[in-house]
Amino acid sequence: MKKTTRPSGWGAVGVLQTISPGDYHVTVVATDTYTTFTPLLPSAAVGTVSVRSLVEPVRKLIARLHGHFVQGKAIDIVMSERLLEVETTSPDGTKTNLYIPYDKIVIAVGSSSSTHGVPGLENCFQLKTIGDAQAMRRRIMDNFEAASLPTTTPEERKRLLSFVVCGGGPTGVETAAEIYDFCQEDIAKYFPKICREEVSIHVVQSREHILNTYSEAISKFAEDKFKRDQVDLITLARVAAVTPTHVLYTVKNAEGKTEQHSIPTNFVLWSTGIAMNPFTARVSSLLPNQVHKKAIEVDAHLRVKGAPLGEVYAVGDCSTIETSLLSHFLQLVEESDKDKNGKIDFGEWEDMVARIKKRVPMAEDHLFKVRELFQLYDSDADDSLSLNELLKLLEEIGNRITSFPATAQVSAQQGKYLGKKLHKLAKASQSRERDPEAAATGTDKRAATNMRALADEAVSGPFRYLHLGSLAYIGNAAVFDFGKYSFMGGLIAMYAWRSVYWNEQVSARTRALLMIDWIVRGIWGRDLSRI
Amino acid sequence: MKKTTRPSGWGAVGVLQTISPGDYHVTVVATDTYTTFTPLLPSAAVGTVSVRSLVEPVRKLIARLHGHFVQGKAIDIVMSERLLEVETTSPDGTKTNLYIPYDKIVIAVGSSSSTHGVPGLENCFQLKTIGDAQAMRRRIMDNFEAASLPTTTPEERKRLLSFVVCGGGPTGVETAAEIYDFCQEDIAKYFPKICREEVSIHVVQSREHILNTYSEAISKFAEDKFKRDQVDLITLARVAAVTPTHVLYTVKNAEGKTEQHSIPTNFVLWSTGIAMNPFTARVSSLLPNQVHKKAIEVDAHLRVKGAPLGEVYAVGDCSTIETSLLSHFLQLVEESDKDKNGKIDFGEWEDMVARIKKRVPMAEDHLFKVRELFQLYDSDADDSLSLNELLKLLEEIGNRITSFPATAQVSAQQGKYLGKKLHKLAKASQSRERDPEAAATGTDKRAATNMRALADEAVSGPFRYLHLGSLAYIGNAAVFDFGKYSFMGGLIAMYAWRSVYWNEQVSARTRALLMIDWIVRGIWGRDLSRI
Repeated sequence: MKKTTRPSGWGAVGVLQTISPGDYHVTVVATDTYTTFTPLLPSAAVGTVSVRSLVEPVRKLIARLHGHFVQGKAIDIVMSERLLEVETTSPDGTKTNLYIPYDKIVIAVGSSSSTHGVPGLENCFQLKTIGDAQAMRRRIMDNFEAASLPTTTPEERKRLLSFVVCGGGPTGVETAAEIYDFCQEDIAKYFPKICREEVSIHVVQSREHILNTYSEAISKFAEDKFKRDQVDLITLARVAAVTPTHVLYTVKNAEGKTEQHSIPTNFVLWSTGIAMNPFTARVSSLLPNQVHKKAIEVDAHLRVKGAPLGEVYAVGDCSTIETSLLSHFLQLVEESDKDKNGKIDFGEWEDMVARIKKRVPMAEDHLFKVRELFQLYDSDADDSLSLNELLKLLEEIGNRITSFPATAQVSAQQGKYLGKKLHKLAKASQSRERDPEAAATGTDKRAATNMRALADEAVSGPFRYLHLGSLAYIGNAAVFDFGKYSFMGGLIAMYAWRSVYWNEQVSARTRALLMIDWIVRGIWGRDLSRI
Repeated sequence: MKKTTRPSGWGAVGVLQTISPGDYHVTVVATDTYTTFTPLLPSAAVGTVSVRSLVEPVRKLIARLHGHFVQGKAIDIVMSERLLEVETTSPDGTKTNLYIPYDKIVIAVGSSSSTHGVPGLENCFQLKTIGDAQAMRRRIMDNFEAASLPTTTPEERKRLLSFVVCGGGPTGVETAAEIYDFCQEDIAKYFPKICREEVSIHVVQSREHILNTYSEAISKFAEDKFKRDQVDLITLARVAAVTPTHVLYTVKNAEGKTEQHSIPTNFVLWSTGIAMNPFTARVSSLLPNQVHKKAIEVDAHLRVKGAPLGEVYAVGDCSTIETSLLSHFLQLVEESDKDKNGKIDFGEWEDMVARIKKRVPMAEDHLFKVRELFQLYDSDADDSLSLNELLKLLEEIGNRITSFPATAQVSAQQGKYLGKKLHKLAKASQSRERDPEAAATGTDKRAATNMRALADEAVSGPFRYLHLGSLAYIGNAAVFDFGKYSFMGGLIAMYAWRSVYWNEQVSARTRALLMIDWIVRGIWGRDLSRI
């Protein structure tokens, strides 16, 4: 039996799409009854696409697997007993908890927004769910309607037409760009009392540049575009507080003194990074060697570190693959120090590199110059690495590895990887059951135990991420980042890229609905209906 | 200048679609920013069509007319000063009132649901707006999810899967049928823990039959269908109260004694007829000769009775065309009693019939046997009608005329009729302005005054309703009622009829979106996503 918790994300969908009917008894636990195509939430928030196109009911996903769905919130886990505690809410609001037993559990509960301790975030929107997008859309439309009223004062009008985005990542940048497009294309046409110039859009970013996880070229393209569009870009700024009517932020002036500023506004989007949600924090707290502050640490096989092996997995934004090599130090030395002399010579080092690559595939990029690395850290030039020298080497390489970004692309690939592996484990376990020789050993014939006994390593290599490129949609243009290559183009480039990317990840229904949305938008314009 | 208030209905849309740019300075006052295609709300409530397809932003409708939109609620009118009082709400909830001056005003504010004084209606849904349909949809999905939880007791499960509709009109019947279809088609597939037999659907109707405004054949067809489908039809029943968990109703048993029953449920739709909303009641109370309890009375030209002539119109559910002939009695006698002898001879009666038909076109059906009618009421057989005999004749004919039903079809036709007339009035007034002779008379050249001075009768006949047939959608079948003809058919018949009917009334966008909805539903099934 296998459980997945809160699959509004890509990780869970990937798992559910990849395993086969009959592999497991599947039960999905989630608070929402549908999954969401999150990368287009900024477009939905402005009415460019319809929210219906972005959702896929969980029950349709699991019907193929003859699975079950429990609408509820995972609140605790007892790993020794293999029980998940779920809180359900009856229609009258009464909460009832139940335990769901599992053989394997996939945690795919996503993340919350990082608050950075800023007061007043209840006055902000977040953009994690369909409900968020709908609420944003209503507020945007309400602001334009209220600004159009003859009873609105000029000052209030200015505030209503001011839109603030805190955070210069893809979500923030795309939302700012969508609002800009909306103003360009629809405000002039349908709100004759509002001049385009009265609308102000502000992006507050703590770093020096926006889209700083992208290439420099893309970051610059986006900044230039915002400059041309008169989107107010405020960098190196810290949001101090958000009130119902203002955003307060501080910047350092030329003399290094902190200056406080405020923007009157009735729309603030908060998108400054991710944090753990309560269930993730609970899982993390239960395990002694979980030290990461923002996510559950998993190994390269996506197994939760410290949990019973082969029983607890985590994918998507709620997880992070460990990048430290130090935790493998002792074992690596034991395995590779063939002559047990407490020193690693070059032959042993080559062996160790192979072992590292297997355990932490993300280290690969930093290990390809095997000889140079060896010489570099062999500070006493004795043609072997002392344990101290090795420790330093592993630590520095570990620091250089960056964990995967919290994107839909990573989540989807992790989900599919895990689904395929779980399918293989089920198949292997079933054939072992049918195998008379294995049966003859007779110690434990239950499929579930067989399955647990089977090591992940036996059926699958570690997870490897294939970067298909990142895309940010900036004002009817797209910037695209693929490793060392990046390009900026118009809508057609974006659609071409998206069609490739989405074929991988999105259902035929979603693709069809989005296609329809674009056609409808092309003919009749954005949806202004505020529903 | 012309104003329309709350055009979520068909009447206002009809007016806005029919007048031409430049005819008037148009301002639309409404609480919602979009209009709704109400006949499909029951389908939207169950996810058969998407809500997006049913709405049309007001701002898109008025863009063609270069009109203005004020989001607010009409709360009062000062007809002597030609001022409409509107309440606007700022984003922080502050209410501000403003007066909007008008030359002509069209009241198209629709209706509320009739409560019949039943306590507990806050526990019911109504189905008037998109918001209502969305709330119903969420409740339906929540009920099925909660019923699927392992923590739900069998008793509670029965209550959650019980759906009650109060009212056997088209809205109630269509909703019950939609819920039935949903259970037949989707529940079995996607809710494996729920048996179709556990779901119960109840229709409580105060009369002997459902769809009693339709032909008998149709009413019977619907009742037989419900019987086959095991939809629980409770006729001649009065709802006594609705509690958060039950519907209480009374029926008379065979001995004529009143029995009380109750149905445990978590879903109650209240659709038992219409009542005045506060603005309609206010308008009605301001005018002495408005006696109708459910709507504003208008004359055959859709002018509000008792209001300054040619300034105040009402269309749609908020209005009713007067059917009484008695109010015309004195004037009719004066005009037709040529010889002023206080008696109406047959020649004078023929003249009078022509005048009646002009003023109250709905009387036509009851006046076609002119000679027989005359003889019937000429009780003293003196070959003329005394005023007493005439009074009796007019009263009885008046009673036989039924006012138009509160349907989208009537509203749309009224809107288009009024729009065409307003357009002609504008044109006539403009040409009068340009006419040098009229200008030379020099008394009042202002277009607005000219316009008011022009009688509606000069440019247009009275409103005539062309019945295009009524349609009720009952469980994947349609029953269709066109005067003496009626037929029942499957989906294809319904679509054929709808395409004819809708071409008249619905925008190309709505038609396209609905077509897409049906295709999407055909391929991927109903939307289960609860958004």
